[in-house]
Amino acid sequence: MKELPKVTDLSMDTGVQELLLKARREGIETAFDRATKMTQCGFGATGVCCKHCLEGPCRIAPNGKGPQLGVCGANVDTIVARNFLTSVTEGAASHSEHSREIIHAILEVIEDKAPYEIKGKDKLQAVASGLGIDTTGKDSKQLAKEVALKALEDFQKQQGTLNWLKLRAHEKSSQTWQELGILPVNAHLEIVKSLSRQVMGGDADPVNLLLGAITLGLVDGYSGLHMSTDLQDILFGIPKVIKTEYRLGVIKEEMVNISVHGHVPLLAEKVVEWARKLNDRAKEVGAEGINVVGVCCSGNELLMRQGVSVATNYASQEMPIITGALEAMVVDIQCIMPGLQEVARCYHTEVITTLPHVKISGATHVEFTVEKADEAAQEIILRAIANFKKRDPNKISIPNEVTEAYAGFSVEQIVDALKAVNSEDPLKPLVDAIISGDILGAVGLVGCTNPREKQDSANVALAKELIKNNVLVVATGCSAHSLGKFGLLSPDGLKYAGEGLRNTLTVVGQANGLPGLPPALHMGSCVDNSRIADLLTALANYLGVGVRDLPVAGSCPETHHPKAIAIGTFFIANGVDVHVGVNPQVTGSDLVVNVLTANKEDYATTTDGIFGGKLIYEKDPVQAAAIIIDRIKAKRHALGLK
Amino acid sequence: MKELPKVTDLSMDTGVQELLLKARREGIETAFDRATKMTQCGFGATGVCCKHCLEGPCRIAPNGKGPQLGVCGANVDTIVARNFLTSVTEGAASHSEHSREIIHAILEVIEDKAPYEIKGKDKLQAVASGLGIDTTGKDSKQLAKEVALKALEDFQKQQGTLNWLKLRAHEKSSQTWQELGILPVNAHLEIVKSLSRQVMGGDADPVNLLLGAITLGLVDGYSGLHMSTDLQDILFGIPKVIKTEYRLGVIKEEMVNISVHGHVPLLAEKVVEWARKLNDRAKEVGAEGINVVGVCCSGNELLMRQGVSVATNYASQEMPIITGALEAMVVDIQCIMPGLQEVARCYHTEVITTLPHVKISGATHVEFTVEKADEAAQEIILRAIANFKKRDPNKISIPNEVTEAYAGFSVEQIVDALKAVNSEDPLKPLVDAIISGDILGAVGLVGCTNPREKQDSANVALAKELIKNNVLVVATGCSAHSLGKFGLLSPDGLKYAGEGLRNTLTVVGQANGLPGLPPALHMGSCVDNSRIADLLTALANYLGVGVRDLPVAGSCPETHHPKAIAIGTFFIANGVDVHVGVNPQVTGSDLVVNVLTANKEDYATTTDGIFGGKLIYEKDPVQAAAIIIDRIKAKRHALGLK
Repeated sequence: MKELPKVTDLSMDTGVQELLLKARREGIETAFDRATKMTQCGFGATGVCCKHCLEGPCRIAPNGKGPQLGVCGANVDTIVARNFLTSVTEGAASHSEHSREIIHAILEVIEDKAPYEIKGKDKLQAVASGLGIDTTGKDSKQLAKEVALKALEDFQKQQGTLNWLKLRAHEKSSQTWQELGILPVNAHLEIVKSLSRQVMGGDADPVNLLLGAITLGLVDGYSGLHMSTDLQDILFGIPKVIKTEYRLGVIKEEMVNISVHGHVPLLAEKVVEWARKLNDRAKEVGAEGINVVGVCCSGNELLMRQGVSVATNYASQEMPIITGALEAMVVDIQCIMPGLQEVARCYHTEVITTLPHVKISGATHVEFTVEKADEAAQEIILRAIANFKKRDPNKISIPNEVTEAYAGFSVEQIVDALKAVNSEDPLKPLVDAIISGDILGAVGLVGCTNPREKQDSANVALAKELIKNNVLVVATGCSAHSLGKFGLLSPDGLKYAGEGLRNTLTVVGQANGLPGLPPALHMGSCVDNSRIADLLTALANYLGVGVRDLPVAGSCPETHHPKAIAIGTFFIANGVDVHVGVNPQVTGSDLVVNVLTANKEDYATTTDGIFGGKLIYEKDPVQAAAIIIDRIKAKRHALGLK
Repeated sequence: MKELPKVTDLSMDTGVQELLLKARREGIETAFDRATKMTQCGFGATGVCCKHCLEGPCRIAPNGKGPQLGVCGANVDTIVARNFLTSVTEGAASHSEHSREIIHAILEVIEDKAPYEIKGKDKLQAVASGLGIDTTGKDSKQLAKEVALKALEDFQKQQGTLNWLKLRAHEKSSQTWQELGILPVNAHLEIVKSLSRQVMGGDADPVNLLLGAITLGLVDGYSGLHMSTDLQDILFGIPKVIKTEYRLGVIKEEMVNISVHGHVPLLAEKVVEWARKLNDRAKEVGAEGINVVGVCCSGNELLMRQGVSVATNYASQEMPIITGALEAMVVDIQCIMPGLQEVARCYHTEVITTLPHVKISGATHVEFTVEKADEAAQEIILRAIANFKKRDPNKISIPNEVTEAYAGFSVEQIVDALKAVNSEDPLKPLVDAIISGDILGAVGLVGCTNPREKQDSANVALAKELIKNNVLVVATGCSAHSLGKFGLLSPDGLKYAGEGLRNTLTVVGQANGLPGLPPALHMGSCVDNSRIADLLTALANYLGVGVRDLPVAGSCPETHHPKAIAIGTFFIANGVDVHVGVNPQVTGSDLVVNVLTANKEDYATTTDGIFGGKLIYEKDPVQAAAIIIDRIKAKRHALGLK
């Protein structure tokens, strides 16, 4: 048995450290412990293991020792490329299904079959117009229906390309994809076709497989990210700047605590609504009220629109339970550790699954449908209230730190904030700052945390290094949570910023009645990486260049999920470099590494040569920042900027 | 380096043995050699390896040693169930995409955009009526269009269930699926949803995952198998009994030899057509003509409808190249070994890929579309002719055995054959034989060959054991090829049959002008397992029972592909036991093994308890036959038959 590492090596978050020690005292295993104990398979970790038929699994040692072909004759390049495509496909499937859930919710809402309303009427108008729908004289329901049906076409059409790609992609990017013949037809079709080419005896050409991954990246981006964001903004409203709190201290001993975890906000929104409505019922069991806190991206969605505070992010999702003061952990889909239930067995916490296709053995299942959303949310709240009395007082220990943060930076909000500086031409102050070099460039800091990495550490270190060098950081997902916990989503964080960046954000912030904007702008959940893409498209259009020409990059320092690989591929397809700080599991193939990272030869066949963006794999965040900044400078130089 | 086994241990087929020796002399590695050299990963082979995120790969040792949970907390049951679902999903994706290709071909044909015609007008009428389409006064094009659009709905609809399930499923089976809430909505939707539940943080309940696998089995069966068969019969005609030849001796030294390999007959049919049209061109290069031979299921499709002879089946697909007399190996999709190109590099053979999403590095690519089907087929034929002169005479060695066989046993053909015995009530002679015990039951012998197993050996041994015991064998896919090579698709094979079976098949055969029907009836390609299902539904309806009540089973003695797992799941969902002779890679989880094989406890939650069918894993074919026969006898007993 390996010795467990010091908790200070597992997370930067002192609250998490405290609860990891508590868990050890109580004999409870967490994801961090499991990561220590589980040796990663060296074959799998380099992408050289093929599990696609009963002749295998076949593994090609990357060092040239042993068999160099699988039983079918697939070589290491084919195997690695296929595994990469599998990851992107899994990510695209997750995000597309997210969108489709929202489409159906909207269709139910407009038929008065589901208890929601169309709150984002401004977004609805904008999206409808963008889709070429004639909006004159149509009420919200009619418009929402037409938009939803246009969205549904992106899962049904048999020719042409995605409506959402036409709506959201930059024209120059689209042109490249069209010329290569890699435009997706419909999301479901492309995902299934991708699966059918990955099976035994399917596609064996690694470059062709990687081009397939680009198509799936576009599916992820347009049918997943963009469509989810747009439709959620239509249903729940466009996020506006909002103040909130971070860290495990947001759990309150005197309250009935419910954490909401997952990705699709349909249930989460209802949990918040019914927590408010049933607040007094909590008093009947001796609590002061009901406290909903967020985890992961359902947390982000609630944060962005409701200001709900965030307890923690992915890797430490078990910690709210270990406080001993969590009555219910309500989950929907994606990034839900089955380990939650293992931990919850030792406490009074009820893990509540809600979707028919996402269950956990031993957990309570309260089925959620949009039609019965109110009933499900009520049942969940009442269960949580009933659990309050089951607490074991001896097991309660809540870390007391909280950190203030601002979130809600949708593109619309950013433009609104800039309007306070220049109402006629709001992007001008931002573009001027970029041109002058006050802002060197921008980086989207996205992704997750990973129990194999010291939690928050690379996210925070990389962000600090970037803002010190006057690079504006925009953030999403669990990475944004990392920055929130450590003060970078607050104007206070400007103390870490270089002078140019600090001055610019101070001016804009003060024009909006704040001491300054935070050095990192929280743009939302993982699907809201679409917002980053929209911002880039707006900047590219303003400057009359392609997205690939902009001095920007993406970075995913602590990722763990295939969804992040899919998102990264989407940005690479758009000509944006993507840094990852975790082994992307492709290193077994020189060919694949070269196509993705353009580090050797055949530049014309690399993603950098074709699309203008590449993968950067660097574990050290300071080193990674230096590479990103060099690349930003090179793109500035190409634009004629100093 | 492991010592290579004797070639007599690798295949029963002496032609294959001969060419394996030739390959060794020439220093060429084949799939059989690669299977010897590649050690299967013990984790993967028991299903306990999870590769769904960058925290892993995680592996749970089935012996209880080492960590028992993955980093996320997934236990071995979750991991094994998820991997099983992955296999079924991959199979369903392959088969569904096959169907969708045919839908689009039909839609092109009826718009006169593709050079095919609707040959199966009788099938068209039958399918249209079955789908509830009013056929009165409509010409073939109109009807075909309506049928194709109904088919397309099964990839687009957002509620209800598959049109093809309603068309083809037995009512009692449907009822069970409906009660369980596992009816598929549309093929693409279910496949993508399945992917989204398999990802990290998705579904973690093994029983729920296995129920998901049943849904995907239904997708495979109805949107894949049945739809493919029905639409192909509409486009190319219903197979009728046809005489053909098997084994490598069908390759002719004096001819331009072209082998057609893959699964979708759109190109293969055109290759045959153009080989006939361009036959004289072969004479210009000194050949006597053009000889098209089949491999795998594209071979089966041509065999069933055109009588094209079959060179070999899956595991030995490289052998036609090693004869030194193959001018072109034309491939479409599925089961295409990338190793073909490795072998072809040592000969004059041109491997020609034809689909944009199935390429092989180094192979020639001639892009096939239905619109340009004639052009592609011509180019392929002309390339093959040009290659004839590139032969190295020193490398030519064609095994000389051929075996005669009959194929073409569609359900319609079987019913027609029975009509010669009883024109009023054609199923009666068959049912009477079953009731009397002359025919004990029936087994569908299906699936593949696998380079890890002695080729054809288990397929043939199991078939012989079954027919000896008066069990009628119907066969498809590469297993049917095994039986064909060894005389079981010929009336001569009746010498191996038990008396009751022999007498019945002799009577029916003689009524049709043959010495007898073969003891194994070749019903087609892998997608034509639908024909077996149709036969079972017809029998169940005749007897007024459910499919689950019939004294029948499926067997897949030498499988290798996830498609076979999907097909097996489809039959289990229908209440038909499925034997596999190759490790199904689920043995790492007692729970999964029990649900699938019902060998321990909790019978009510096993597939046998719920659907009436289970998985039987037994490597020894004689032992397997005994288990299958016992089960057939038990089902007979339950029906009140002796």
